[in-house]
Amino acid sequence: MVIRGIFPALVTPFHADECVSISGIKENIRRYNETHVAGYVVLGSTGESVMLSRDEADSVLAAAKEVAAPGKLLIAGTGAESTGETIARTKRAAAMGYQAALVKTPYYYKPVYRAETYLQHYRAVADASPIPILLYSVPQFTGVTLETPEVLALAAHPNIAGIKDSSGNIQRVGEMVAGARKDFCVLTGGAAVIYPALAVGARGAVLALASALPEKCAELFELVQRGEHEQAQLLQLLLVTASKRIVSECGVPGIKYAMDLRGYEGGVSRRPLLSLTEEKKQAIAAVVSQLHPEAAHV
Amino acid sequence: MVIRGIFPALVTPFHADECVSISGIKENIRRYNETHVAGYVVLGSTGESVMLSRDEADSVLAAAKEVAAPGKLLIAGTGAESTGETIARTKRAAAMGYQAALVKTPYYYKPVYRAETYLQHYRAVADASPIPILLYSVPQFTGVTLETPEVLALAAHPNIAGIKDSSGNIQRVGEMVAGARKDFCVLTGGAAVIYPALAVGARGAVLALASALPEKCAELFELVQRGEHEQAQLLQLLLVTASKRIVSECGVPGIKYAMDLRGYEGGVSRRPLLSLTEEKKQAIAAVVSQLHPEAAHV
Amino acid sequence: MVIRGIFPALVTPFHADECVSISGIKENIRRYNETHVAGYVVLGSTGESVMLSRDEADSVLAAAKEVAAPGKLLIAGTGAESTGETIARTKRAAAMGYQAALVKTPYYYKPVYRAETYLQHYRAVADASPIPILLYSVPQFTGVTLETPEVLALAAHPNIAGIKDSSGNIQRVGEMVAGARKDFCVLTGGAAVIYPALAVGARGAVLALASALPEKCAELFELVQRGEHEQAQLLQLLLVTASKRIVSECGVPGIKYAMDLRGYEGGVSRRPLLSLTEEKKQAIAAVVSQLHPEAAHV
Amino acid sequence: MVIRGIFPALVTPFHADECVSISGIKENIRRYNETHVAGYVVLGSTGESVMLSRDEADSVLAAAKEVAAPGKLLIAGTGAESTGETIARTKRAAAMGYQAALVKTPYYYKPVYRAETYLQHYRAVADASPIPILLYSVPQFTGVTLETPEVLALAAHPNIAGIKDSSGNIQRVGEMVAGARKDFCVLTGGAAVIYPALAVGARGAVLALASALPEKCAELFELVQRGEHEQAQLLQLLLVTASKRIVSECGVPGIKYAMDLRGYEGGVSRRPLLSLTEEKKQAIAAVVSQLHPEAAHV
Repeated sequence: MVIRGIFPALVTPFHADECVSISGIKENIRRYNETHVAGYVVLGSTGESVMLSRDEADSVLAAAKEVAAPGKLLIAGTGAESTGETIARTKRAAAMGYQAALVKTPYYYKPVYRAETYLQHYRAVADASPIPILLYSVPQFTGVTLETPEVLALAAHPNIAGIKDSSGNIQRVGEMVAGARKDFCVLTGGAAVIYPALAVGARGAVLALASALPEKCAELFELVQRGEHEQAQLLQLLLVTASKRIVSECGVPGIKYAMDLRGYEGGVSRRPLLSLTEEKKQAIAAVVSQLHPEAAHV
Repeated sequence: MVIRGIFPALVTPFHADECVSISGIKENIRRYNETHVAGYVVLGSTGESVMLSRDEADSVLAAAKEVAAPGKLLIAGTGAESTGETIARTKRAAAMGYQAALVKTPYYYKPVYRAETYLQHYRAVADASPIPILLYSVPQFTGVTLETPEVLALAAHPNIAGIKDSSGNIQRVGEMVAGARKDFCVLTGGAAVIYPALAVGARGAVLALASALPEKCAELFELVQRGEHEQAQLLQLLLVTASKRIVSECGVPGIKYAMDLRGYEGGVSRRPLLSLTEEKKQAIAAVVSQLHPEAAHV
Repeated sequence: MVIRGIFPALVTPFHADECVSISGIKENIRRYNETHVAGYVVLGSTGESVMLSRDEADSVLAAAKEVAAPGKLLIAGTGAESTGETIARTKRAAAMGYQAALVKTPYYYKPVYRAETYLQHYRAVADASPIPILLYSVPQFTGVTLETPEVLALAAHPNIAGIKDSSGNIQRVGEMVAGARKDFCVLTGGAAVIYPALAVGARGAVLALASALPEKCAELFELVQRGEHEQAQLLQLLLVTASKRIVSECGVPGIKYAMDLRGYEGGVSRRPLLSLTEEKKQAIAAVVSQLHPEAAHV
Repeated sequence: MVIRGIFPALVTPFHADECVSISGIKENIRRYNETHVAGYVVLGSTGESVMLSRDEADSVLAAAKEVAAPGKLLIAGTGAESTGETIARTKRAAAMGYQAALVKTPYYYKPVYRAETYLQHYRAVADASPIPILLYSVPQFTGVTLETPEVLALAAHPNIAGIKDSSGNIQRVGEMVAGARKDFCVLTGGAAVIYPALAVGARGAVLALASALPEKCAELFELVQRGEHEQAQLLQLLLVTASKRIVSECGVPGIKYAMDLRGYEGGVSRRPLLSLTEEKKQAIAAVVSQLHPEAAHV
């Protein structure tokens, strides 16, 4: 299995009453299928997975699987706090046809979690999983960083295919690429650093921003592949601004609003996530219309 | 309702296969009923609530309710990431006979959570809850601190009875006591700072350590009430060391091991929490036997 | 030598042109001599020592020494980044008649400073110093915390008399008191936690706030000594608010303004420290006049 | 003035007794003059400037000026805690023939420093300086980050030529490049992210590592200029490892040891910086000999 390219981290669209919109999930994916994205991450942080019940999560996984085009790689977010529940979720995703699992670090008891805790957890999950797993370090949400030595130790496991690193720290990406086996796949989670990450050997990116701007994210990946440095730099700088305005400053509600602007089904986020202020909506509309002049008329 | 005194934050004992031991929960509480603790917090951080399924959580709440002595106040941990799920859990706990709910802050999307997020969340929960709620700020686990201005704003809500503050920051306790209404109840979460917290007006403490050492924690509370400064200082310094060795350095597995030493049912923790090294077990045994010479022969 | 009680951390008053006001230093100390403070810390963080040239620093030390009353213990801040310069400053202070030196941690190269770095540094300074030294951990300014194990190791040195801990973390105070030799002197740096710190065995406090409010700080110390719990709690809660408004929110310019209000010579701070907004001045005036109704008419 | 390319952040070599080695400074620069570096930063963080007296600092500046080749741009580190002293140092450097000044953020009173503090400080320095200044944000040492909005506001000042950003955060580099005027010069401080920084529009780098490995750092810059992506990626990955082993893990003593291995004059660092363990020396020797097989026989 080759994991390479741009993967949107899908949102879970909700109706105004905060119920899951299964039709919205499907409609969005049908449109993404027409773009150059390499696959989908379902139930990641962007999917508000920590807000969903088990039944809701399963229905989202099923809906995405149903409509994803055959060539698109399907990755399920399956990380839970306990090792047992993480394994259960991973097996369920595999049984539903997902090809890989993205497993975020446990984090609640971080004051007593040690390097050894993460090693044992990930090895237990990888041993039990029918499908390859990707490590997932997302310190902005979890307060936990999976440090390079642990990543490199885990990279030796045959069922651990790579890592999504959302730190935005490119030195880390370089350290992992330099230290791990050749086919270990490092993906960045930051749309603001796609090109820098590729410059030090990342294979691609899992991006919330790609739920709203899949074409531009995929285009940047392709520009870098073709060695078109100047074009890549210009597009990357535009995505720096887009990522800051939409993702860093507004989070999931920002991504959903940008999706609404582009005709996807974004919708509300579950509380306590607040809806956006008018000022933030305008800032997002400005940056979206810069990249897609036809959009931003909501 | 008066919330005052020492409340053990109960563990959830597991069998060796990581299944919940309902008999263990009951047996422990029956012994606590004989001590001077003021009540129980069920399904707090110490209860590994983030590791439990909904059914498991409900069975733990039911078991604790069944055996708690009438005079002991029953508080349920009901905080979830979404406002909706938090309200659902709180109502369920109220229906089961719990007298108050301890509601930890939402935290996963902390980069976009603002003061307003917490205000709206807690007001929605307090409005919907049939029982009084306690705010719960536990930055070591969540990475989120409910700041004093938000606490003081929320203290004006008639159904918000107080706060458990686990920061260990006594200046914060003083700021809350100085700024909130007279009957707003500030409880510390740190066994190492019971006396200091009481010195600036806290009403009591919710303590993981009190699951293993309920008598000593309650004794310190009583010494301070009686103005026995020297005795209080000496006992507090012993609990500083106990809290550090057992809670800070070893977390839930440390508390469970100290419980085992004293004849309670502690048992294993769910993975990825690791079992203790022999060295840590000995450090805990030393500190427990200093306070309870009859214990520590496991 | 007994280090016990309340020590104001003295400001360095400047004229409007940012030149040191030697007469201001002397005038302030003459008034402090009439209060129950135990001594003075000269050239601490509050003294803007990092803003002073060597000649300026020496002139401040000389002026303070000249007018301090005989019964007041004189402590000089002598910490510099290099071990050599720290020793040189400490010897100079001793030669000028200072009775102890307060030595803040080195901090600039914190990414490579280890526990061993601090142990070697402090041992070298203590070995070379003609006068006892006090460790000084002030993470809010330095980003460095001198951890309890290092403090306890250093407490064994015969020329290390104690520590000023400005973390505000009372658990730390308890750990040091519980772990160090009986006569090791732990002083808190937080006016908001004087009583809590004394409750776990601290000997006193070095306080910026005591430059503006020496009588109230000393009174709280005495109330606790006499076991007047209720009065102590009330006064501590007032000082919590005063410390927050003046020290935490406004820093040295806030302390100087509060001093101005009380008739001391505070004056400007060196840039880049900004002068206070009118709003902040009013907040300080309100809190000062609550404690000293005759003040606050500037 | 064009600031572009690789600038070694020079060390200050000391003799075994910790005295400054003026001959060492000169000898090192004479060798650097033969390489493709664009100029020199004298008295930066790598130069242990916080350990030097004013006289020592002046002698170092004079020595470097004396021997630097005419084509090499000379930049002096002049940041002090006070605005006044920063201006004084900057004027002195200009008088000695330095062409630009690198001004690190003030940081000691960070709890009360606001965005406005930094704006006023830098504007005062830039107004008073006879030479262009570069902002300098180095959070690992100072605990202070000069945030993008402040950088962009300051970029409008005609005498502020650019910034050295040592955060290693490439998103920040992109935000500054995207937001500032076209000729505003962003330099990274991280040898591990030279290529990623250039990918988003940085003009070059100020590097401690370039004091030991000037040729390799300059070569990477040139590879990127020529669009040789694959070669650039390979060399960058080697420098990731070198930077981690030498700079991140060992700091100034590591850089000096690597210099010693390559025949430069590195020497000891001032205490409290500790000398390296044998294990760390061997790790550095391994990485240096990988890049320069002729070196590493000390």
